[in-house]
Amino acid sequence: MIPILKTDLSSELLDLENYIINHSCDIEHWFRTQWLEYTAPFYASVDLRNSGFKLTPVDTNLFPGGFNNLNPDFAPLTIQAISIAIEKICPDARQVLLVPENHTRNIFYLKNIFELTEILKNSGIEVRIGSIAPNINEIQIIEIDEKNSIKIEPIHRENDRLFLKNKDSTTFKPCAIILNNDLSAGVPDKLNNLNQRIIPPLSAGWPTRRKSIHFSYYNQIVEEFSKFTKIDPWLINPYFEKLNGLNFLEREGEIQLAEHIEKLLIKIKKKYSQYNISHEPYVVIKADAGTYGMGIMTIKNSEDVLNLNRKMRKKMSVVKDGIKVTEVIIQEGVHTEETVNDSVAEPVVYMIDHFVVGGFYRVHTNKEKDENLNSPGMHFVPVSFETSCLMPDQGRPCDDKANRFYAYGVIARLALLAAAKELKD
Amino acid sequence: MIPILKTDLSSELLDLENYIINHSCDIEHWFRTQWLEYTAPFYASVDLRNSGFKLTPVDTNLFPGGFNNLNPDFAPLTIQAISIAIEKICPDARQVLLVPENHTRNIFYLKNIFELTEILKNSGIEVRIGSIAPNINEIQIIEIDEKNSIKIEPIHRENDRLFLKNKDSTTFKPCAIILNNDLSAGVPDKLNNLNQRIIPPLSAGWPTRRKSIHFSYYNQIVEEFSKFTKIDPWLINPYFEKLNGLNFLEREGEIQLAEHIEKLLIKIKKKYSQYNISHEPYVVIKADAGTYGMGIMTIKNSEDVLNLNRKMRKKMSVVKDGIKVTEVIIQEGVHTEETVNDSVAEPVVYMIDHFVVGGFYRVHTNKEKDENLNSPGMHFVPVSFETSCLMPDQGRPCDDKANRFYAYGVIARLALLAAAKELKD
Repeated sequence: MIPILKTDLSSELLDLENYIINHSCDIEHWFRTQWLEYTAPFYASVDLRNSGFKLTPVDTNLFPGGFNNLNPDFAPLTIQAISIAIEKICPDARQVLLVPENHTRNIFYLKNIFELTEILKNSGIEVRIGSIAPNINEIQIIEIDEKNSIKIEPIHRENDRLFLKNKDSTTFKPCAIILNNDLSAGVPDKLNNLNQRIIPPLSAGWPTRRKSIHFSYYNQIVEEFSKFTKIDPWLINPYFEKLNGLNFLEREGEIQLAEHIEKLLIKIKKKYSQYNISHEPYVVIKADAGTYGMGIMTIKNSEDVLNLNRKMRKKMSVVKDGIKVTEVIIQEGVHTEETVNDSVAEPVVYMIDHFVVGGFYRVHTNKEKDENLNSPGMHFVPVSFETSCLMPDQGRPCDDKANRFYAYGVIARLALLAAAKELKD
Repeated sequence: MIPILKTDLSSELLDLENYIINHSCDIEHWFRTQWLEYTAPFYASVDLRNSGFKLTPVDTNLFPGGFNNLNPDFAPLTIQAISIAIEKICPDARQVLLVPENHTRNIFYLKNIFELTEILKNSGIEVRIGSIAPNINEIQIIEIDEKNSIKIEPIHRENDRLFLKNKDSTTFKPCAIILNNDLSAGVPDKLNNLNQRIIPPLSAGWPTRRKSIHFSYYNQIVEEFSKFTKIDPWLINPYFEKLNGLNFLEREGEIQLAEHIEKLLIKIKKKYSQYNISHEPYVVIKADAGTYGMGIMTIKNSEDVLNLNRKMRKKMSVVKDGIKVTEVIIQEGVHTEETVNDSVAEPVVYMIDHFVVGGFYRVHTNKEKDENLNSPGMHFVPVSFETSCLMPDQGRPCDDKANRFYAYGVIARLALLAAAKELKD
C-alpha cells in the first residue's frame, strides 16, 4: 500500500520528480562526489513532507528510533549498510555497547533497540545494551513481545573506559559505543573523555546540535543541488529563521517572535501566489535544540503567539528532560497531503552511512495535515515502505511507487549531507 | 524451495556448520580484518559443492555470468554493493563501458549482461555495452525477451582511450571499463595499455590466472580459518595437484598423469576411511587456465586416463576459444548431495566487492552427482536462493535455510579471499 497523494503534484514538483528519476545517474554521481568530501553520519532518519507542491525534510534525527518499523524484507540491506559503516569507523570492532535512551518503559522504543541489536549481531558484531540512566543499577530484562526480550545493563567505568560486568565477574569490554541516545539531558560524566570510540560523536547530541545550523547547511546543499537540477530551491526547502532570548513562561520575546512569524508568513504567501497555491500558509515554532515532538507549535496567524494561554506557554518552555527553551526556529509549515485511509501520512526515510535502507510512514488517525505528527508517545501507526528507495524505474510514471520512494531517498540524502557538514564543522 | 540434502550432514560438517552459525561474530570480525589487508575483486561467483561430509568451493569465477539468475528480491542488496564497489575503485566514474563475452548468441548470457547493466544503472552509473569481438563493426540490438533488448556497440580506440560513437557523432567517453569477458582468447590489443581503469584488472583474465594458484591461496586461507575454527581443513578444501607438459592429443604426459591421479585417489581414500565415508572417490581433471566447463573430465580410476578415446582426448586438449591445454589441475571430486526434485543441485554464490549478494542453484536434470554441472551451453535450470546469505539465525537448526545459506556465504568468501590474494600478487 502506498499512501495516496490527495492533491495532484504541481507542475513544478512534477518537473522536479521527473528530473530526479530521469537523471538518477547524474544525481548519484553528484552524491558520490559529495561523499568523497563529507563523512556521512553513522545513521539518521529524515522526516519528509509532501504537499504536492513542495517536498522537503522537516527534521533530521541523528539518533533514529523506529528501526522496528522498517520493512523486514529489506533487513539484508540494513545489515550490509551497517557492516560498511562499522568497517569505516572501526573495522577492528568486535564488541560494541549500545546506549539507548533513558526512558526504558516505552515498548515501541525498546522494540527499536531490539531491532538495532539484531542488525548489529547479523552484521557480525557482538552487542550488549548499557544504560546511562542514573537509576539503572542492576540488570533489567524486559519482554518486548511474546518471543523476545532485551537485557539492559548498568554501565561501569574505569579510568577512561566503559565496560559491563558479567555474572562470573569477567567483563565485557566494548571497542566502541553506539549511541541511540540524543543526550537531551546533557552529556553525562560517564561519557566524557573516553578512550573508546563513540558513534555518532557526542557533538551529534542536542547539547551541541541546533536545528538552525542544520537547516543553514541544508540551504547550502539545496543551493548546489538546485543549480544542477535547475529548480527553484524553495520546492525542496522550507523557509526558516532562528530566534534567541525567548522565555515563553515570562512572555519575553513574544512581540519579536510575532514580528518574525509575520514576515515569514508574508514570504510564504508570496511564493504561494507565485505558484497559485490556495493552501493557508503556516509556520511551525520548534525548540532549536530538541526532539521528540516537544516544544513544537503550529501558528497560522502571527498574533496567536501573543495570545498563548499559560498551558501552551508552559508546553513551549521546556523540551525533553526538562531542558528550558530559549532558542527557537520558526519554520515554514509544509502541508502533508499524503494519506492512508484518509489519515495523514508522513514519510520517514532511514539511512545508515550514506545508504538509504528504507523507511516508513507515520500514519496519524486523529491529526490534521498541518499538525506535528511526531508527538510524545506513540500516536501513529507505522506503515513500512513497500519498496527500497534504491531503484528508480525510468520506464514508469514518476509517481509510481518505486519512483516516489527513490525521490524521497534523494531528498532525505540532501538532509543527510547537511548533517554530514554539520558534524564536520 | 531449498534443495534437499540427500545424505545427513556428517557429524564433522555439522560441527563446522554449527561453529559457523554460532560464531558468526568471530567469523565476520575475522573477515573484516582480512578485508583491511586484501582488496576484494570487483565481483565474483563461487561454485560450491556440499557432499554432506564436505562443503567446498570447486571454482571461482572473476567474470561472473548469471546475474539474471539471482533472486530479484535482493536486487537492492546488489545495487548497494555495486555502489560501494564503484565508490572504492573510481568514485568519480559517471560513464562506464561494459565489455561482455564475444559469444553474442547465448540468450542466457545476454540476459546476464542486461541484468548487469540494470544493476549499474540503478546504482547511478551510465552504462553502455561495447564488444571486443572482431566481427562487431556496427551496433547490434538484440531482444532478450518480449520487453527488453540490449544494444551492443563496436568499441573505438584513440590513443590510449576507448570510446563509443554516438549517432550524432558525439562520443561516449567511459571513465572506466568493466570486463565481463574472461579474456580466454588472450588480451586483445584494444585493451592493452589503456589510460582508463579496467575492472577487474586484465590480470584477472585466463591468460594470467591459474586455477592451481587460486587453490594454493585457498589452502593458505583455509589453514588460517581452520586454526581458529579448530576443524580439519579438508572438510572445506578439496585436495588438488598441478601438472604441466601435457598433450592429450599426442598422449604426452599420460602416464605421469595417471600416477598422480592414483596418488591423489589414495590420499582421498585415506580421508574417506578416517571419516567412514562409503562414497566412491573420484578426481576431476581441469585445464589450469580456463572456464566454461570445457577441458574438464571426471576420473574414478587412474587407469582410465591411459585409455581415453580420441574424442575424449580431443575434448581435453582445447578449451574455450581454441586455447591448447598443456597444464591441468587434478582436483579431488566433491559429490553433490543436494537435490531439487531428485535432480542434482549445485549452489553458486555471488559476491560484489566483499559482500555476498545472493546466489542460485544449478539444477541439472540429466546428470549424476559426480559430473561437472557447468557444461557448455545451458543444461541447467537456475533456482535462485530464497534468502540472502547474510543472516544466520542462531535460534534455529544449522541446516535451516537461512543458516545453510549463511554457511555457504562464509565458504564462498574464503574463496573470494583467495582470489583477492591472487590478484594482489
